[in-house]
Amino acid sequence: MSDLFHREYDRLRALVEARLETYFTADAPAKSLADAMRYSALSGGKRVRPVLALAFAKACGVIDNTALDAACAVELLHTYSLIHDDLPAMDDDDTRRGKPSNHIVFGEWRAILAGDALQAEAFSKIANCGLEPPRVAKMLSALARAAVDVCHGQTLDLEAVESGSADLYAIHALKTASLFVAAAKIGVLAAGGTERQLTAASEYARAVGLAFQIRDDILDKDGFYTAYGIQKCEELIESNTIKAKNSLKGAFGGVRFLSSLAEELAGRSS
Amino acid sequence: MSDLFHREYDRLRALVEARLETYFTADAPAKSLADAMRYSALSGGKRVRPVLALAFAKACGVIDNTALDAACAVELLHTYSLIHDDLPAMDDDDTRRGKPSNHIVFGEWRAILAGDALQAEAFSKIANCGLEPPRVAKMLSALARAAVDVCHGQTLDLEAVESGSADLYAIHALKTASLFVAAAKIGVLAAGGTERQLTAASEYARAVGLAFQIRDDILDKDGFYTAYGIQKCEELIESNTIKAKNSLKGAFGGVRFLSSLAEELAGRSS
Repeated sequence: MSDLFHREYDRLRALVEARLETYFTADAPAKSLADAMRYSALSGGKRVRPVLALAFAKACGVIDNTALDAACAVELLHTYSLIHDDLPAMDDDDTRRGKPSNHIVFGEWRAILAGDALQAEAFSKIANCGLEPPRVAKMLSALARAAVDVCHGQTLDLEAVESGSADLYAIHALKTASLFVAAAKIGVLAAGGTERQLTAASEYARAVGLAFQIRDDILDKDGFYTAYGIQKCEELIESNTIKAKNSLKGAFGGVRFLSSLAEELAGRSS
Repeated sequence: MSDLFHREYDRLRALVEARLETYFTADAPAKSLADAMRYSALSGGKRVRPVLALAFAKACGVIDNTALDAACAVELLHTYSLIHDDLPAMDDDDTRRGKPSNHIVFGEWRAILAGDALQAEAFSKIANCGLEPPRVAKMLSALARAAVDVCHGQTLDLEAVESGSADLYAIHALKTASLFVAAAKIGVLAAGGTERQLTAASEYARAVGLAFQIRDDILDKDGFYTAYGIQKCEELIESNTIKAKNSLKGAFGGVRFLSSLAEELAGRSS
């Protein structure tokens, strides 16, 4: 991938990091809860979802603080889902992104509440982003849809662990692709994009989300990798990446970054 | 309290129950999650918050399915908070409203996810209620604010258990009154009420919420009851009930039901 792509990715990621830094300050009613929220929201990660949102905002117009808050809202929702996924009653993971999980640092009940509050903050950030109400309402509808889907996906995933049989397409669509779609739509809406751009962004994000998750399964040697083998996985990744890139055609002016992003997320090594 | 009041309360509660019955049907991606959500959403209760929302909708105009969905959204958010409060890592309660808690019936991880999904559904119900976007955006902003507050309130509450010292006013304001305020505002907004009505409804709900919670503490012999004694509690309940009723004056046409509701919630015996 070109240096140009990585410079732009890093620039967008830095915007997200800087914006997230301004959240969860010391004036919260329960300071310890704000600390727990902040800990996970600022614990790094690739910031794929907010970068995706910003890339679509840019493809439709400009990136301003409104688009940035909307993009960060998607990351807050993702962060909440990771905190809850790591809980002892769920995946029981002690580490996340190379650091102790939220519940290890802040205790189980506070981790549950930090997740709960991050979900609420995600909706709050968009509700109060200052955009015109019709777009805000559509953004919140997209986020809510994904938020419900993520819970259903996680349920199917945990049930698959218990039963030994999984509908991997459904799990990945609900748990991963749905939030990618919300991120893309929110980016388009933040920049005042058209209906056609909304549709194209959704198609792109759904395909990229699936490719991203299958690559994840290959890296983790589970899911699609175990069920279908490496060759089928690589074929699915390639066809979905092509589908993603094709969906951009004619809908946006400049698509170089979004095309490269699809390739990067499909082929990443970590 | 008059028969007229109770007939109207029961009528509004029945509207809420009937509407909730239509949610969480069998076509959900993860049926077991929908079952868990349905179990708690339909497990009875006084339905104080949605009735409050409907009472304000009626005071500002009419109650239609839009107002009903908005009112039910508040109840879904309340239901999620109860499911999470009952978790082993939180209050560790095995029963709720005379029935086994959600995590007892559906297991801990599914109860966490059922709560998560109910919060998301609460936002979804309003986002998709079909009202004009400016009102939807304001309703979602009110709900998000309360959703964040509830988490901070629960945090302060659990920290008080650990430390033995509590700021009861802050806890009750965040954990109880904030969602009462959201319910009232959502009711006004659903019926197209004025700014003045919004302000009056907020004042009413804040005072009623505090009186409601202090009565709760008296019934449970904890909180305000333990800290301040019965006389001070009754004084606070009375002053807040008067404040609530006064806030209605001049802002709404018919206030008989809302006045009676303030008295009923302040003086209830269960």
